Amino acid sequence: MEAPVPHPTEPPAAHPPTGVWLIGARGSVATTTVAGCAALAAGLHPPTALVTSAPAFAGGALPPLGSLVFGGHDTAATPLPKRAEELVAQGVLPHWLPAAAHAELAAADERIRPGGITRDDDRAPDETIAALAADLTDFARATGAARTVVVNVASTEPAPAEETLPPSSLYAAAALRAGCAYVNFTPSAGLHHPRLAAEARAAGVPYAGRDGKTGQTLLRSVLAPMFAQRELRVRAWSGTNLLGGGDGAALADPAAAAAKNAGKERVLADSLGAVPEGTVHIDDVPALGDWKTAWDHIVFDGFLGTRMTLQTTWQGCDSALAAPLVLDLVRLMSRAQERGLTGPRPELGFFFKDPDGGSPALAAQYEALLAFGARLGAHR
Amino acid sequence: MEAPVPHPTEPPAAHPPTGVWLIGARGSVATTTVAGCAALAAGLHPPTALVTSAPAFAGGALPPLGSLVFGGHDTAATPLPKRAEELVAQGVLPHWLPAAAHAELAAADERIRPGGITRDDDRAPDETIAALAADLTDFARATGAARTVVVNVASTEPAPAEETLPPSSLYAAAALRAGCAYVNFTPSAGLHHPRLAAEARAAGVPYAGRDGKTGQTLLRSVLAPMFAQRELRVRAWSGTNLLGGGDGAALADPAAAAAKNAGKERVLADSLGAVPEGTVHIDDVPALGDWKTAWDHIVFDGFLGTRMTLQTTWQGCDSALAAPLVLDLVRLMSRAQERGLTGPRPELGFFFKDPDGGSPALAAQYEALLAFGARLGAHR
Amino acid sequence: MEAPVPHPTEPPAAHPPTGVWLIGARGSVATTTVAGCAALAAGLHPPTALVTSAPAFAGGALPPLGSLVFGGHDTAATPLPKRAEELVAQGVLPHWLPAAAHAELAAADERIRPGGITRDDDRAPDETIAALAADLTDFARATGAARTVVVNVASTEPAPAEETLPPSSLYAAAALRAGCAYVNFTPSAGLHHPRLAAEARAAGVPYAGRDGKTGQTLLRSVLAPMFAQRELRVRAWSGTNLLGGGDGAALADPAAAAAKNAGKERVLADSLGAVPEGTVHIDDVPALGDWKTAWDHIVFDGFLGTRMTLQTTWQGCDSALAAPLVLDLVRLMSRAQERGLTGPRPELGFFFKDPDGGSPALAAQYEALLAFGARLGAHR
Amino acid sequence: MEAPVPHPTEPPAAHPPTGVWLIGARGSVATTTVAGCAALAAGLHPPTALVTSAPAFAGGALPPLGSLVFGGHDTAATPLPKRAEELVAQGVLPHWLPAAAHAELAAADERIRPGGITRDDDRAPDETIAALAADLTDFARATGAARTVVVNVASTEPAPAEETLPPSSLYAAAALRAGCAYVNFTPSAGLHHPRLAAEARAAGVPYAGRDGKTGQTLLRSVLAPMFAQRELRVRAWSGTNLLGGGDGAALADPAAAAAKNAGKERVLADSLGAVPEGTVHIDDVPALGDWKTAWDHIVFDGFLGTRMTLQTTWQGCDSALAAPLVLDLVRLMSRAQERGLTGPRPELGFFFKDPDGGSPALAAQYEALLAFGARLGAHR
Repeated sequence: MEAPVPHPTEPPAAHPPTGVWLIGARGSVATTTVAGCAALAAGLHPPTALVTSAPAFAGGALPPLGSLVFGGHDTAATPLPKRAEELVAQGVLPHWLPAAAHAELAAADERIRPGGITRDDDRAPDETIAALAADLTDFARATGAARTVVVNVASTEPAPAEETLPPSSLYAAAALRAGCAYVNFTPSAGLHHPRLAAEARAAGVPYAGRDGKTGQTLLRSVLAPMFAQRELRVRAWSGTNLLGGGDGAALADPAAAAAKNAGKERVLADSLGAVPEGTVHIDDVPALGDWKTAWDHIVFDGFLGTRMTLQTTWQGCDSALAAPLVLDLVRLMSRAQERGLTGPRPELGFFFKDPDGGSPALAAQYEALLAFGARLGAHR
Repeated sequence: MEAPVPHPTEPPAAHPPTGVWLIGARGSVATTTVAGCAALAAGLHPPTALVTSAPAFAGGALPPLGSLVFGGHDTAATPLPKRAEELVAQGVLPHWLPAAAHAELAAADERIRPGGITRDDDRAPDETIAALAADLTDFARATGAARTVVVNVASTEPAPAEETLPPSSLYAAAALRAGCAYVNFTPSAGLHHPRLAAEARAAGVPYAGRDGKTGQTLLRSVLAPMFAQRELRVRAWSGTNLLGGGDGAALADPAAAAAKNAGKERVLADSLGAVPEGTVHIDDVPALGDWKTAWDHIVFDGFLGTRMTLQTTWQGCDSALAAPLVLDLVRLMSRAQERGLTGPRPELGFFFKDPDGGSPALAAQYEALLAFGARLGAHR
Repeated sequence: MEAPVPHPTEPPAAHPPTGVWLIGARGSVATTTVAGCAALAAGLHPPTALVTSAPAFAGGALPPLGSLVFGGHDTAATPLPKRAEELVAQGVLPHWLPAAAHAELAAADERIRPGGITRDDDRAPDETIAALAADLTDFARATGAARTVVVNVASTEPAPAEETLPPSSLYAAAALRAGCAYVNFTPSAGLHHPRLAAEARAAGVPYAGRDGKTGQTLLRSVLAPMFAQRELRVRAWSGTNLLGGGDGAALADPAAAAAKNAGKERVLADSLGAVPEGTVHIDDVPALGDWKTAWDHIVFDGFLGTRMTLQTTWQGCDSALAAPLVLDLVRLMSRAQERGLTGPRPELGFFFKDPDGGSPALAAQYEALLAFGARLGAHR
Repeated sequence: MEAPVPHPTEPPAAHPPTGVWLIGARGSVATTTVAGCAALAAGLHPPTALVTSAPAFAGGALPPLGSLVFGGHDTAATPLPKRAEELVAQGVLPHWLPAAAHAELAAADERIRPGGITRDDDRAPDETIAALAADLTDFARATGAARTVVVNVASTEPAPAEETLPPSSLYAAAALRAGCAYVNFTPSAGLHHPRLAAEARAAGVPYAGRDGKTGQTLLRSVLAPMFAQRELRVRAWSGTNLLGGGDGAALADPAAAAAKNAGKERVLADSLGAVPEGTVHIDDVPALGDWKTAWDHIVFDGFLGTRMTLQTTWQGCDSALAAPLVLDLVRLMSRAQERGLTGPRPELGFFFKDPDGGSPALAAQYEALLAFGARLGAHR
């Protein structure tokens, strides 16, 4: 763990404020995003894991981290500074961060609204959406943000019945209504609900999703193309994910896991041309806290059918993997909206398990992202 | 293991013979190459692991497998049909193959010349090269091959002193002298010797190398770019290779291993921009025979310096991984020579640990290979 | 793979024949048992993996392998010599074995009876049991075996409803009725059915079970005591098993897997004093054939709560692991019956996931087994 | 990580003080030992990983943790409270510990003497030993400790030439001269030097060693007996250890690693009856700090020679694994000396890679330890 030695980063932002509205604003990912943004903006740590910190994105006119202002919806009550302390105890955040980022955590916490959508909420969906959209409008007015990016980082919800809009879709609809760019970092339905299709097309905002690609699927998106290019025939691809935290418990629900696994399987099917044998498990292991272990076991045929195997074990911290990608997406989507881009953004497939089109191969996705970055900066 | 059900492949070759001259012609890789080529040409097994079997290469006018005729140099005496039986016992070749490929194995075996270069060889290097080149010319005359590709698949030799040409370089010089395309599938010096530089430039033949990328480095060439693109900071990359067979014993010699490890490190340095901490070990484990286990352990920093790890365990059969790539290289290089291409071929970096230039990333190397395939086929 | 060089073993058996009756007599385990017994008895291979081949058991007066004669029940029709060929193709049996053991395989195959118990079998259970017991009596008469050990090596059946006797229990009841020792090498109910309790007590035969301890649970039976003795606190123990073959498909049925997992959990609970977090998965991966990969991930607390992990990956061939234990159990149980021992044999916990009492620690189980061996030999 | 909730442990010690003298008293193991002892004595954390906290040792009349007083030799200058802070940053100690144990750390630090033995030390060995022994006598006088246990937890030193006493042996000789029990927790020579043999026999103190069994060898001491008892033939056992901290750097010296690896191999040779193929590597990976990853790869033959493998990956914190064992050894050795036991204590093989006799199997070693505990308590 690095000590908080200031690193020279971006100059103090004369840039106008950029709004970031987090659905699940008191969760681990959100807390890490807010605290980490503060630390990087203050030069307390180099921007490791921030994709848009690469020189290739320097010309993209992306909003600097120091210009981001945070708010969000959450039904949980534990304030962000306290959540940050908890994440230190779990080994997610460095011990110096809660103090260093206290002001930013407290400021964001004050801007969190309950937003709660409960099962016995008897408001009509439209009424709920309007109330949520009003929260977004209030936030923009209070912070002076010209644009706000709404990012869903809440716990995964079960796959919805088709007739009713699940909570994630209500929040997504509120983003549309408030004219905000929308990012779905979870496998929940969000804008991917048939009843929102027309509205999404008409809204004139850019959106992207879904399900951040942070571990096992990230690996799969480079390994599956390798097998395909080498004409090695993948026979079986099995995976087990162990994780605690809220996400472990949420995904222990088979209905929630189903949504997540669909994304994981898609990268294999798209890369290999066929779905191999094998199952993906997601197990709740509370002892692991926010740390995740993903084991993959791949059986493949080589020359003359010789059977071979590859195993991978990935041990990562979920929130630390997700948070910088959230910041990347906010920077890219805010600038995309500024440039007038609307609709689904397949150029951001690099970040998602189940993107809106494009190649399933990470290398191709990175090429597309670089081109997108260049396009965002051109003709300013 | 597949049963020998005939698969429809290429039509009977009206194509003129294409020569393949293997340095180390009675080794495991060579035996698997000859037997496997026969099986695939006869339609007894689908062309799994043959990169050039992909539809993308169909227009490259590559010589069909059925047109390849084999010979080579080796000091070992065990005939190829017997070596094939041994490889069945080790689980490398399917049990039906020695019988099915007996004619081709016996024919290739008859064309093997001792070629032997011993330590107390008191001939002048030039005399040795002339004798080896004569073997190549005789082979072309006997088989009617218009072009011959020389491929070094012999055991790795220790890094040479600069003054003397090591055996691999004598064989490479003979290829130049006989006007043959040359492929160095090992980490030995081959054409990469300062005393051969002028001759290589002048020879007017295409050449490529070195050290076939069959396992651990193949993985590294997709994983290292992944870390780089995600701005994850790799702190340490350690590796242990366990293998038996002749290669295990040869690489237990630290001098021989040094050449191999230099190639393995290069992909990391080139992809990551810095050499991470960590060591690569190659251990001789005779009990593993021709099977290789490669364990990699990668320590990387994520957001705010959070320390994470990835481990990979690759269990493959070395000869089965190498042989199809040898066939790919022969097809590509023979056609390249036919098209009049000469000098180093960086377009073939996809196949090598330590290629002659080009990107270290497998995805970029595959793009370059596809473009090369298209170029070979154009304007026939 | 070893070549069939004869090894000096036991002298030609003047020993009278010992009957072995296998439920599931044409399965992989049974085929490996019969063929392997023939190979060892003929001195074609050393007795690797045969526990009772240790010098410590030399005084136990156990029947020699050459005295074993095989028969059994199976509804499958593929004859044993053909099954052995299939197992060679899967890499389970050495290629020379089907020919070397052909006579013994054919002889055993002729003594297999259908025995079939189908779902629409409308015979009364008692009638079925009587028919099965008659098969056993016929076998003893035909072979001249003074004693027969019945071993269940059939596919795992779902946990039964309490009222009806499942097939495994019908076979077990037949063993009791015919006065045969009985071994349940599977997690199926067998004698562990409340409606057989009284009969088992009264039968006057020795019996043992259940579920052969061949891989993941074998490891757990040495690792769990290690954690306990070192006062390391195991927080989570997760496991994933990948296997093909018939067993993979059978255990993909959650009801069948439940029986198996109960045994796996018991060793942890008994060794650690508490059931840790974590789940065990059994996945059907047909591409693996008879090979099984078991991955375990253990999270434990050390001094001052420092969180640490251990992972194990076991790659074994199920039939090759099971078959020698079947031979061990037959030798021990036959001799136990000869010595007049009856009822459950907790001394054989070394062989089982879910034994009839005794310590869960492998070391203690081995001590108990050695003592049992000594007792069997005493006062002959 | 646990919060410092007081746990009821032992009553306040009316027990007279027990001296603990650590060679390498400002190293990671020593710091963790002193701080952890304070935390446990104060009931701030349960005694996880302390073997002698098991009820079986309650009757052994072992000195309570609260009675231990610490001092030692070290040439390093960083005071213990500061070292504890550093270990928090590395994730070795919980963040609350430096404050909670500050008084004990500071008190121990004041009792540390330089003791330094440098290469250009031109004192005669005997003079050095006398000076070191005087430090021990002073410590006993100052603390009122009736008995002091000297424990070597310094960095591993290279294998010595036979003629000269290496530093570890000079410290060991000083312990003998001062009448102190001696424990060698490292692979350094210590009392195992031919020139100390007579003195050790004559000294009338108990001693034990060497090289604490904390990770890879601990696993081997349960896995190797498992293979032996199952008559599985181990063909190769390869291992790679990755670690940073001071120990990683020290063991990167092949001469130092040689001593360590000899102990690791001995458990295999003694358990399996033969040394299998394979190599053990110890790599310095500074990025891992005090954390160690040990990968083992075992190739074994099953029934009929079927080749199988087991892999283990152990990820532990070296100091957290070693410190509780140091406390265990101090308690046991102090009581042993009180009971008048002298000479080598093979009963403590449970704790060491390379013990003074006894079984190499952990289960047997634990039995011996339990018996020793009972003996210590008897006839008080």
